[in-house]
Amino acid sequence: MNQALQLDAIHNELIDERTKGFPYGTPPMALNRIGEQGWQLLNGALPFPLAVLKDAALAHNHCWMRDFTSATGVLLAPHGKTTMAPQIFAQQLAAGAWGITVATVQQLTVCVRFGVRRVIMANQLVGPSAVAEVILLQEAHPELEFFFLVDSEAQLRLIEAEAERHPMSRPLTALLELGIPGGRTGCRSQTQASALASAIAASASVDLAGIECYEGLQLTGDSAHDADFVTGLMHAVRELALACDAAGQFAGTAIVLSAGGSAAFDVVARELPTRLSKPVHTILRSGCYVTHDSGFYARMLDNVRLRSGARWQSRPGLQPALEVWAQVQSRPEPGLAILTMGKRDASFDIDLPRPQWHFRAGRDTLPCPAPDSWRIAAMNDQHAYLHVPADADLQVGDLIGTGISHPCTTFDKWRVLFTVDDRYRVTGAIRTFF
Amino acid sequence: MNQALQLDAIHNELIDERTKGFPYGTPPMALNRIGEQGWQLLNGALPFPLAVLKDAALAHNHCWMRDFTSATGVLLAPHGKTTMAPQIFAQQLAAGAWGITVATVQQLTVCVRFGVRRVIMANQLVGPSAVAEVILLQEAHPELEFFFLVDSEAQLRLIEAEAERHPMSRPLTALLELGIPGGRTGCRSQTQASALASAIAASASVDLAGIECYEGLQLTGDSAHDADFVTGLMHAVRELALACDAAGQFAGTAIVLSAGGSAAFDVVARELPTRLSKPVHTILRSGCYVTHDSGFYARMLDNVRLRSGARWQSRPGLQPALEVWAQVQSRPEPGLAILTMGKRDASFDIDLPRPQWHFRAGRDTLPCPAPDSWRIAAMNDQHAYLHVPADADLQVGDLIGTGISHPCTTFDKWRVLFTVDDRYRVTGAIRTFF
Repeated sequence: MNQALQLDAIHNELIDERTKGFPYGTPPMALNRIGEQGWQLLNGALPFPLAVLKDAALAHNHCWMRDFTSATGVLLAPHGKTTMAPQIFAQQLAAGAWGITVATVQQLTVCVRFGVRRVIMANQLVGPSAVAEVILLQEAHPELEFFFLVDSEAQLRLIEAEAERHPMSRPLTALLELGIPGGRTGCRSQTQASALASAIAASASVDLAGIECYEGLQLTGDSAHDADFVTGLMHAVRELALACDAAGQFAGTAIVLSAGGSAAFDVVARELPTRLSKPVHTILRSGCYVTHDSGFYARMLDNVRLRSGARWQSRPGLQPALEVWAQVQSRPEPGLAILTMGKRDASFDIDLPRPQWHFRAGRDTLPCPAPDSWRIAAMNDQHAYLHVPADADLQVGDLIGTGISHPCTTFDKWRVLFTVDDRYRVTGAIRTFF
Repeated sequence: MNQALQLDAIHNELIDERTKGFPYGTPPMALNRIGEQGWQLLNGALPFPLAVLKDAALAHNHCWMRDFTSATGVLLAPHGKTTMAPQIFAQQLAAGAWGITVATVQQLTVCVRFGVRRVIMANQLVGPSAVAEVILLQEAHPELEFFFLVDSEAQLRLIEAEAERHPMSRPLTALLELGIPGGRTGCRSQTQASALASAIAASASVDLAGIECYEGLQLTGDSAHDADFVTGLMHAVRELALACDAAGQFAGTAIVLSAGGSAAFDVVARELPTRLSKPVHTILRSGCYVTHDSGFYARMLDNVRLRSGARWQSRPGLQPALEVWAQVQSRPEPGLAILTMGKRDASFDIDLPRPQWHFRAGRDTLPCPAPDSWRIAAMNDQHAYLHVPADADLQVGDLIGTGISHPCTTFDKWRVLFTVDDRYRVTGAIRTFF
């Protein structure tokens, strides 16, 4: 499976100062020349706010996840919705990922355009134009392996109706989604799921390729609870897979079993693999591991490591690779600093950004750790409220580097993110497609 | 002041299916050809989620605000951060806006590039590269009138230090920001503000051009409270302006007094105008009026109209112009539908989107109003949870049109938004620059 990506269109794209983060007064520049400019986040030449990806942490996380999945014997189709950055997809595939996961057909088109040839859409395929596009992509790219979710006969019938309108040299390949009562999508019971499996198996245009579920929304951070919950869910997937296999409902030469976000993938890797009558591809879909974070996933990874034995406890865990930097624009009260970053620049849906670094031009050569007492208490569209002790040594013009919580909702606020080395020198640029 | 915008670069830009909302399988197309394609949101050819701007509501809102500002005798520099769409800036200027407001220097560069020649940055200018860019733009565009905020001597000194490094044929022009204790930026007292006014007046590189404040963050929705609060704040601005004027601290041939978001601009228009020794430009900066919304600003505008007398109560108010449409992808439980839209697609920072329309292909020719009992209870990155009565007639594949609350945080999730007529036929496309 050749998934060498074609990134020339990205590398050659001209970036200019209409793009947030691009230095003011700089002529338009091909994206792949950005790393040669000698730009440095700390020397005053770059605008703020600025989102950066730390090269060393990214590289570390690629290795960590490659080692974790190979140690546990599962495959990885990292969720591409996190970054929507084909350059990062290329790194993930080079680090051994089996394919890429997406959430929408638009995200699928981005993957296919840049050369990804194994894609799981961890979402229901719905809508005539979406079904037509999938068929078109499958016909145009015979080597493309694309899997999508089905959780109702109503959805299956709509897909079949649209499929009848297009010539197809091969069937569509669906994963049946097993859900959770009170949860999001997915069949609510084995009975429902079995009936749907029979309907898919009988479909002329849609093959049943495997079983999918998603455990991430019900996790609490209580490790024992989470492990029990995910174990039970994986056993339900196995039960369903065994039943479908026994009934001969799986088409194709291999069977896909897939689950696993970024918060309890260890339990999935341990409990999901199942022996069936054909080769089984057990595929995790973690997306956030690649940049990790300084909030929600940092907390969840502590549990992953604790549950995974001494080897993973002694080894350094995933590292936060994504930071958003801003400048102090005002110190209007002793305990308050206003920063040049807001809801347009950094995630705020789980936690607010966390101040991690403080840098003063003319005094510091590298950032100093921000005191634990400094806390971002609120954000407006373009401002953050940093609460500090009344005697804090913090001035207008100082830089604050923040760690974020939930990388997905920071990536989608940036069209280009710079990569930086350990001294915050810009080494390149990553283009997103949201 | 010629502010005819140069939009050719936008009109000629090729849009393709890497851009969210562009129809699948469609060849790349110049943006200004999109309106000629005969696309229709309701006929299955467009992907979902999809953000659309309703032409009739946009046109209505432009007229409404033109009439309101001309009736009250104030000028309008609509906040461009809301849309960051030069095509909409052009409409606003054509409808009589004095200039455009921005929040960052990146937003200023977008304005200047497309031909806006009067810009207020309702934010502190800070950072060497930002100051250098402003000087460069002022020198390159002698007709550019650009105002930014200063709220501390520390900030003023940093600007002066950077200004010394650049040849300047004219000074920078600052507005002194009067703030609110416990608020965001701005001087906390008349004493502080007076001292800063003296410092700016004595600056070799920065002129004092006027006074600014922002009343929007303290509003409660209680009309009497809000009117009292804003009246008091405007009187404080007037007091400061009178003192600075008496001290001869204002440079230039006119004095700028500016306040006014989208929630209490009527009180600002009534209470801010002040007679000084030079002509006064009283400038509102409302941004959200242009698309209005179906949540926070809809509630606040009711108060604006009630406070503005019979003429504005009898006339139709602003209309919501921005909708996000999605498809039902799953009906996993009788009271639950999962929609193909999420935190990547629509605002969720004040209210969640509100279901307003329901459309079923094959049954309906136009959308039906969604029942009031239908409610979006949560969103994930790419999904919305629509709660409905257990017997609701809602199927997989149905379309739901939602109104949003707080347009700023929906615009920034779309690179291109389609404009539509009353039958949801696509009439054009609006490009954003976030």
